[in-house]
Amino acid sequence: MKAASAPLMSIIGYDPAGAWEHGGESAAEVLEYRNPAGISWINLNSLDGGAVSELGKIFRIHPLTIEDILDVNQRPKAEEFDDYLFITLKAIHREGDETGYEQISIILKEDTVITFQEKPGDNFDGIRKRIKNNAGYIRRNGTDYLAYTLIDAVVDEYYLALDLQGDKLEEIEDRAENENDTDFIPDIQKIRRALSALRRSIWPLRECVSRLLHTDSPLIRGELSPFLKDIHDHVVQAAETVENYRELMAGIMEVNLSTVSNRMNKIMKVLTIISTIFIPLTFIAGVYGMNFRNMPELVSPYGYPLIWTVMLFTAGGMLIFFKRRRWI
Amino acid sequence: MKAASAPLMSIIGYDPAGAWEHGGESAAEVLEYRNPAGISWINLNSLDGGAVSELGKIFRIHPLTIEDILDVNQRPKAEEFDDYLFITLKAIHREGDETGYEQISIILKEDTVITFQEKPGDNFDGIRKRIKNNAGYIRRNGTDYLAYTLIDAVVDEYYLALDLQGDKLEEIEDRAENENDTDFIPDIQKIRRALSALRRSIWPLRECVSRLLHTDSPLIRGELSPFLKDIHDHVVQAAETVENYRELMAGIMEVNLSTVSNRMNKIMKVLTIISTIFIPLTFIAGVYGMNFRNMPELVSPYGYPLIWTVMLFTAGGMLIFFKRRRWI
Amino acid sequence: MKAASAPLMSIIGYDPAGAWEHGGESAAEVLEYRNPAGISWINLNSLDGGAVSELGKIFRIHPLTIEDILDVNQRPKAEEFDDYLFITLKAIHREGDETGYEQISIILKEDTVITFQEKPGDNFDGIRKRIKNNAGYIRRNGTDYLAYTLIDAVVDEYYLALDLQGDKLEEIEDRAENENDTDFIPDIQKIRRALSALRRSIWPLRECVSRLLHTDSPLIRGELSPFLKDIHDHVVQAAETVENYRELMAGIMEVNLSTVSNRMNKIMKVLTIISTIFIPLTFIAGVYGMNFRNMPELVSPYGYPLIWTVMLFTAGGMLIFFKRRRWI
Amino acid sequence: MKAASAPLMSIIGYDPAGAWEHGGESAAEVLEYRNPAGISWINLNSLDGGAVSELGKIFRIHPLTIEDILDVNQRPKAEEFDDYLFITLKAIHREGDETGYEQISIILKEDTVITFQEKPGDNFDGIRKRIKNNAGYIRRNGTDYLAYTLIDAVVDEYYLALDLQGDKLEEIEDRAENENDTDFIPDIQKIRRALSALRRSIWPLRECVSRLLHTDSPLIRGELSPFLKDIHDHVVQAAETVENYRELMAGIMEVNLSTVSNRMNKIMKVLTIISTIFIPLTFIAGVYGMNFRNMPELVSPYGYPLIWTVMLFTAGGMLIFFKRRRWI
Amino acid sequence: MKAASAPLMSIIGYDPAGAWEHGGESAAEVLEYRNPAGISWINLNSLDGGAVSELGKIFRIHPLTIEDILDVNQRPKAEEFDDYLFITLKAIHREGDETGYEQISIILKEDTVITFQEKPGDNFDGIRKRIKNNAGYIRRNGTDYLAYTLIDAVVDEYYLALDLQGDKLEEIEDRAENENDTDFIPDIQKIRRALSALRRSIWPLRECVSRLLHTDSPLIRGELSPFLKDIHDHVVQAAETVENYRELMAGIMEVNLSTVSNRMNKIMKVLTIISTIFIPLTFIAGVYGMNFRNMPELVSPYGYPLIWTVMLFTAGGMLIFFKRRRWI
Repeated sequence: MKAASAPLMSIIGYDPAGAWEHGGESAAEVLEYRNPAGISWINLNSLDGGAVSELGKIFRIHPLTIEDILDVNQRPKAEEFDDYLFITLKAIHREGDETGYEQISIILKEDTVITFQEKPGDNFDGIRKRIKNNAGYIRRNGTDYLAYTLIDAVVDEYYLALDLQGDKLEEIEDRAENENDTDFIPDIQKIRRALSALRRSIWPLRECVSRLLHTDSPLIRGELSPFLKDIHDHVVQAAETVENYRELMAGIMEVNLSTVSNRMNKIMKVLTIISTIFIPLTFIAGVYGMNFRNMPELVSPYGYPLIWTVMLFTAGGMLIFFKRRRWI
Repeated sequence: MKAASAPLMSIIGYDPAGAWEHGGESAAEVLEYRNPAGISWINLNSLDGGAVSELGKIFRIHPLTIEDILDVNQRPKAEEFDDYLFITLKAIHREGDETGYEQISIILKEDTVITFQEKPGDNFDGIRKRIKNNAGYIRRNGTDYLAYTLIDAVVDEYYLALDLQGDKLEEIEDRAENENDTDFIPDIQKIRRALSALRRSIWPLRECVSRLLHTDSPLIRGELSPFLKDIHDHVVQAAETVENYRELMAGIMEVNLSTVSNRMNKIMKVLTIISTIFIPLTFIAGVYGMNFRNMPELVSPYGYPLIWTVMLFTAGGMLIFFKRRRWI
Repeated sequence: MKAASAPLMSIIGYDPAGAWEHGGESAAEVLEYRNPAGISWINLNSLDGGAVSELGKIFRIHPLTIEDILDVNQRPKAEEFDDYLFITLKAIHREGDETGYEQISIILKEDTVITFQEKPGDNFDGIRKRIKNNAGYIRRNGTDYLAYTLIDAVVDEYYLALDLQGDKLEEIEDRAENENDTDFIPDIQKIRRALSALRRSIWPLRECVSRLLHTDSPLIRGELSPFLKDIHDHVVQAAETVENYRELMAGIMEVNLSTVSNRMNKIMKVLTIISTIFIPLTFIAGVYGMNFRNMPELVSPYGYPLIWTVMLFTAGGMLIFFKRRRWI
Repeated sequence: MKAASAPLMSIIGYDPAGAWEHGGESAAEVLEYRNPAGISWINLNSLDGGAVSELGKIFRIHPLTIEDILDVNQRPKAEEFDDYLFITLKAIHREGDETGYEQISIILKEDTVITFQEKPGDNFDGIRKRIKNNAGYIRRNGTDYLAYTLIDAVVDEYYLALDLQGDKLEEIEDRAENENDTDFIPDIQKIRRALSALRRSIWPLRECVSRLLHTDSPLIRGELSPFLKDIHDHVVQAAETVENYRELMAGIMEVNLSTVSNRMNKIMKVLTIISTIFIPLTFIAGVYGMNFRNMPELVSPYGYPLIWTVMLFTAGGMLIFFKRRRWI
Repeated sequence: MKAASAPLMSIIGYDPAGAWEHGGESAAEVLEYRNPAGISWINLNSLDGGAVSELGKIFRIHPLTIEDILDVNQRPKAEEFDDYLFITLKAIHREGDETGYEQISIILKEDTVITFQEKPGDNFDGIRKRIKNNAGYIRRNGTDYLAYTLIDAVVDEYYLALDLQGDKLEEIEDRAENENDTDFIPDIQKIRRALSALRRSIWPLRECVSRLLHTDSPLIRGELSPFLKDIHDHVVQAAETVENYRELMAGIMEVNLSTVSNRMNKIMKVLTIISTIFIPLTFIAGVYGMNFRNMPELVSPYGYPLIWTVMLFTAGGMLIFFKRRRWI
C-alpha cells in the first residue's frame, strides 16, 4: 500500500522494453515523464479539484466526467466518450483495522490510463510491482489490459471482504445452534450492513463490466474479451455469494427465532404448570386456616391426614391430566 | 423561491447576447416579450384553466396534453408529439416547514419552453439567476438544455429529501440500539410514507428520462445525450437509495422486534421464576396455618425450624433445577 | 344508468350530421335502424344466448369469440380477427349499494361497434348523451374512437372504486394509530379482497390496451394512438395505485401488529410485576400465620413491626432491582 | 371413462364420411384398422414398454422421445421433430374419490395422432363420442385439431379441480371468520399441496401451448391459431386462479393469525387482571392472619370493618388505574 | 467408482471398432496411447497444477481456462474458445456416507475430451463401461456426444440427491403433523442448506446447457440438439424440484409454527384459567383466616357452610362467565 505521504500524482511509463515511475505535485510535473511511444499510467492520490481539472483540460475530458470524478457518491458505471472510456468503481479501502470504500475513477485512452483515487493508499501496489518486474502480461499489452488489471484488483478485494463476512457468519451460525443465545443480533446487523454495502458496490459493477464487454469502442481490443468475461464471471459469483450470505443470514435468524421461542415456551409452560398445581393446594390449605368456630373437620382426628390425602390426590390428578394431554 | 404574489405568468427571453424577464396575467400580455430570434421560457405560476387553454391554443397543444397538464395526478412521463415534447414531473414543493409535491409540466418546442406549476413558488430561481448572469451553459444552448436544467433541478431536490430521510433513519437506528424502546414506530411509519411518495415520483422518472435519451425527436440534440445520461444515473441512484433506505428500515424493524421480544421474554422469565419459587413455599406455610386440632408437627419444638429447613431446601432445589436447565 | 326493464337490444346510429337510438328484442328488429353511411353501435343488455349467436351469424363472428362472449369468466383481452377486433373487459357494476363486476365484450368493425353486457344497467349513459348532444369528438370520429370512449368509461369507474378503497384505508389508518384497537381487521380483509378483484380486472387490461396500441389492424387509425396511450397511462397508474394501497395496507398491519404487541407486552409486564412483588410478601405473611407452638418471633413485642419492616424492605428492594434493570 | 379392463391399445379411424374404433393388444393388431386416406388416432392405455417401442419403431420416433414417454416425471412440454410434434402433459386422473395426475404424451403426425396414457381410464371419452357422432368440428379437421381437442379436455379438467379447491377455500374462509378456530390448518395445508400440484402442471403448459402457437411446423395449420390462443388464454387464467387462491389462502392465514392472537391476548389480559387484583388483597388478608401476639389492629373492634374498607379501596383503586390506562 | 489409488491420469481411446484404457502419471505418458484416427478421452484424477499446465501447453488452452480449472470455486459455465469448448460443473461427490461437491471441468476439442476432477473417484465409471462394451451410442458418436454423456451423468446424480432430500422432507412433514414437536428444526436447517447447495449447482447449469444448445461452434453438431434439449429439460425440472422443496419446507415451517403456537396458547389459557379461579377463592379463605377478634361471621354456626357456598358460587360464576365468552 502506498504511503499517505506519497506525492499527489505519479506516473508510470512502460513498454515491453522497460518501465519507470515518477511522482509529482502537478500535472505539468509528471507529464514530463510521459512515455511517448509506449503506455503511461497517471495516478492521482486524492481528489484534488485543481489537479483533476488540470488533467481534464490537458486530456480534453467532458465536464460531466470531471463532475463525476469529483462527486464521490457515483454509482459504478462505464461510459464511452469520443476518445476515452470512463469507468468508476467502489474499491475497498483499508486503513488500519477499519474497512471502508473509496471511489476509483479510470480514464482509459489509447496510450494513457488515468486513475483518480478518493483516498491516499490503494490496492494497486501489486500491479506496480508486476509492471516494474515485467511479471505477467501487462508490459506486453495495451491500456485496456492495464484497466482490466486494475478492475481485477478491485474485484479481488471484494472476495477477501466476502470471505471475512462468511467467516463471521459461520461463527454466528455455531453460536446460534449451541447456546440459544440471541446476543449475536447486533453482529448480524453489522454483517447485514457490510453485505448491503458490498452489494451496492458489486451489483452495478456487473452492468459496468458487461458494457465494457459489449462495447464497440476501438479502445477495448477483441483479445481482451476472455479477460473481461472472466471478471464478469467473478463479479456475478461475488453477487451470488452476497445473496447466499443474505439467505443464510435469514435462515439463521428464522431458526434462532423459532428455537428461542420454543425454548421460552417450554420454560413458561413448566413454570406455569408448577404454579397451577400449587395454587389449588394453597386454596385447600387456606380453607382450613379459616377461623370459623364451627368447622367439624378441624376437630376430627382424621381431618389432618385426610386433607393431606385430598391435596396429594388433587396434585396427582392434575399431573395425570396434564400428562394425558401431553402437556408435560 | 418566487413569492406567491408574483404575477400568474412570466416570460424569460434569452440568447447568448442577453436575457430579460417580464410578468403578466395573460398569455397575450407576456407573449409580447417573446424572443423572436432566441429562446423564450414561459412559466405559469399555477394551473389556471383559462391561461392553460389559452396557451394550448396559441401553441397548438393536443387536447390530451392540456388535460394531462390540468390533472395533477399524472404519473411522471415524457411524450412526443408532432412539434413538441411533453414532460410531466413531480417536484418537491416546500412551504414553510412542510414538504409536499407539486406537478411540473414542461412543453418543449424548438424555440420555446413552457412550464406549468401546480403551486406558486418553485425551485427554479437558481436557473433564472444563471440565465440572467449568463452563468453555466444555458444561454449558449437550446431549449433542450433548458429543459435538462429544469429536470436536473427537480432531481437535485430529491437528493435533499432523501438525505433528510436518511438522517432521520440514522437517528432512529441509534435509538433502536441504545434504548430498546419502540416509540419510534410512528416515526418509522412517517419515513415509510415519505419514502413511498419519493419512490412514486422517482421510479417513473427513470422511464421518462430514458425515453428522452432514446427519442429520435429533432428537439433533443445529440450533444444533450451525456447530460441526459447523467440525469438518468442520478435518478437510478436516487431510486436505489430509496430501496436501500427501505431495506435498512426493514432491518431496524426486524432487529428491534427481535430485541424487544427477547428482552420481554427475559423479564417475564425472571418474574415467573420468582413467582414459581414462592408459590410452593406459600403452600407449605399455608399447610401449617391450618387449624386442625390434631397436627403433631405443630406441637413439636423442632417443627418450626424444621419447616424453615424444608422451605429453604425446596427453594434451593428449585433454583438448582432451574440453573441446571439453564433457565436462569 | 339504464333501467333493467329496458329492451334487450338497442342500436344507436350516428354520423356528424345526426344520431338516433332504437330498442328492440331481436337483432332483426334493431338492425333495421342501422346507419348505412355512418356508424352503428349495437348494445346487448344481457348475455342472451340466442341474441348473441344471431348477431354472431349476421356479423360473421368466429365461434370462439361467441364462446368467449358467453363465458363470463374471461380474462380481459384484445384479439384481432380478419375483419373485427374483439375486446373483453371487466367493468364495475353498481346495483344499489352493492358493487360487483360485469363482463363487457366489444366487437369493433369498420362501421359497427357491438357491445355485450353481462348485466342490465351500464356506465355508458354519459356516452349516449354525448353522442346525442354531439358533445366531444365521438360523432366526428370512427368506430375506434367510440371503442376508446367505452374503454375510457370503464377505466374511469376503476378510479372511483380505487378512491373509495383509498378513503376507507385512510380512515382505518387513523383508527389504527389512535385507538390501538384491532377491530378493523375484517375491514382490512374486505379492502384486501376489493383491491384483489380490482387488480385482477386492471392488470390484464394493461396488456390488452398495449395490444391495441401496437396493433397494425386498419380498424385502429393512427390518430387514435395518443388516446390509447392516455388510457394506457391511466391503467398503469390505476395498477400502481392498487400496489400502493396494498403496500400501505401491509404497513398498517405491520405497525398495528407491532403497536398492539408492544402495548400488550407493557400491560402484561406491569401486571406480572405487581404479582411478583406481592407473592413473596404473601409468603412471609403465611409463615407467621403458621400455628407452630414454638415460634419465638410471635411472642416478641417487636415481632409484628419487624415483620412489616422486612416486608417493606423486600418490596422496596424488588422495586429498586426492577428499576435498575429498567423493567419499570 | 374407459374401463380398466379395456384392451391395451385402441385405434379410432375417421374422416368426414365415417369413424370406427378397434381395440387390440399389439401395434400390428390395431394398425390393420388404420385409415389410409383419413386420420387415425392410436391410444395406448398404459405405458407398456414393449408396445411403446414397437410403435416407436413403426413411426420412426426419436429414442429420446420414447424415453420421455416412458419416464412419467416429465415436465409438460412441446417438442418439434422432423416429421412429428411431441407433446407431454399432466392430466388429472380420477379413480373413485381420489384425484391424482397421469402423464399423457401425444405424438402428432400428418395423418396420425398417438396418445400414451400413464394409467388406464381417461378423460377422452367425450371426444370419442364426438368423433363417432360427428359432433363438433373434429371429423372435418386434421390431426392438429384432434390434438387441440385432447389438450382442451385436459385443461377443462384443471378448471374442475380449481373450482373444487375454490369451494373448499370459501368454506374455510367462513370458518376462519366465524369460529376463530384454527382446526382448519391441516385443511389449508392440503389445499396448499393440491394447488402446488396444479401449478406444477399448469405453469409449464403455458410455455408448451405458446410453443405450439409460434411453431412454424407444417403440422399445425394457421387456422388452428385462434383455438390455440383460446387454450393459451385458458391456461393463463387457470394459472392466475392458482395464484389468486394462494394469495387468498395467505390472507386467510394472516387474518386468522392476527385474530387468534388478538383474542388470546384479550383473554390473557383479563385473566391476569383478575389475578393481579386478588393477589394484593390476599396479601392483606395474610397479614392479619399472622399470629403475632402484639397486633393492636386485631383487638380493635374497628379492625375487621376497616380492613375490608382498605381491601375494597385497594381493589377499586386498581380497577380505576387499569381503566384510566384503558387496560380494561 | 474409481479407487483413490488410481494413477493421476488416464486415457481412453475409442472408435466404432474398439476401445482401450491406459493410466499414467504424466501427460507424455498417457498421450502415447492417444487415438490418432478416433476419439481420446483424457481424465485427470485430481487438480495437480503441474499436470494441468502440461496439458494446457500441449492442447494450447487459454491461460484463463487453466486458471478456471485450478480455481475450484468456479460457477458452472460454458465458454467457447477458438478451437475448444470449456465447460465447468459442480458434480456431487460421495465419499463413504458423506456427500460433497467436486468441480469437474471439461475441455471439448474435435477429437479429444479432457476432464479435470477436483477429487479422485468419480461418477463416470458407468460411462467407461459403456465405451468398453460398446453399449449405447458413445462409440459411434463424436466428442460432443461424450461430453453430453458426462454432463448427463452429473445431472442424474442431482436427481438422486434431490430424492434423498425429498424423502427426508416427507418424513419431517409426518413428524410435524403427528407429534407437534419442533425438534426437527435442525433437520430442516440441514435440508435447507443441502437444497441451497444443490440450487447453486443447478441454476447456473441451466444457462450453461442453454449456451451449448445455442452455440454455433462446429464442435457441437446439429444432431446433438435433442440430447442437449433433454439435459436442459432435466436441469429445469431439477431446478423446479428444488423450488418446490423449498416451498414445501416453508409450508411445513409455517404450519408447524402455527400449530405449536396454537397448542401453547391453549395450554397457557387452561392453566391461567385454573389459577384465575382459585386465586379469588384463596383470597376469601384468607379473609376468614384473619385473627380479628371481632369477626361476627366466624362465630355464627352458618358461617362455615355459607362461606363454602359463596366460594362455590364464585367459582361457578367465573366458569359460566368464561364459558359464555367461549374462553373454555
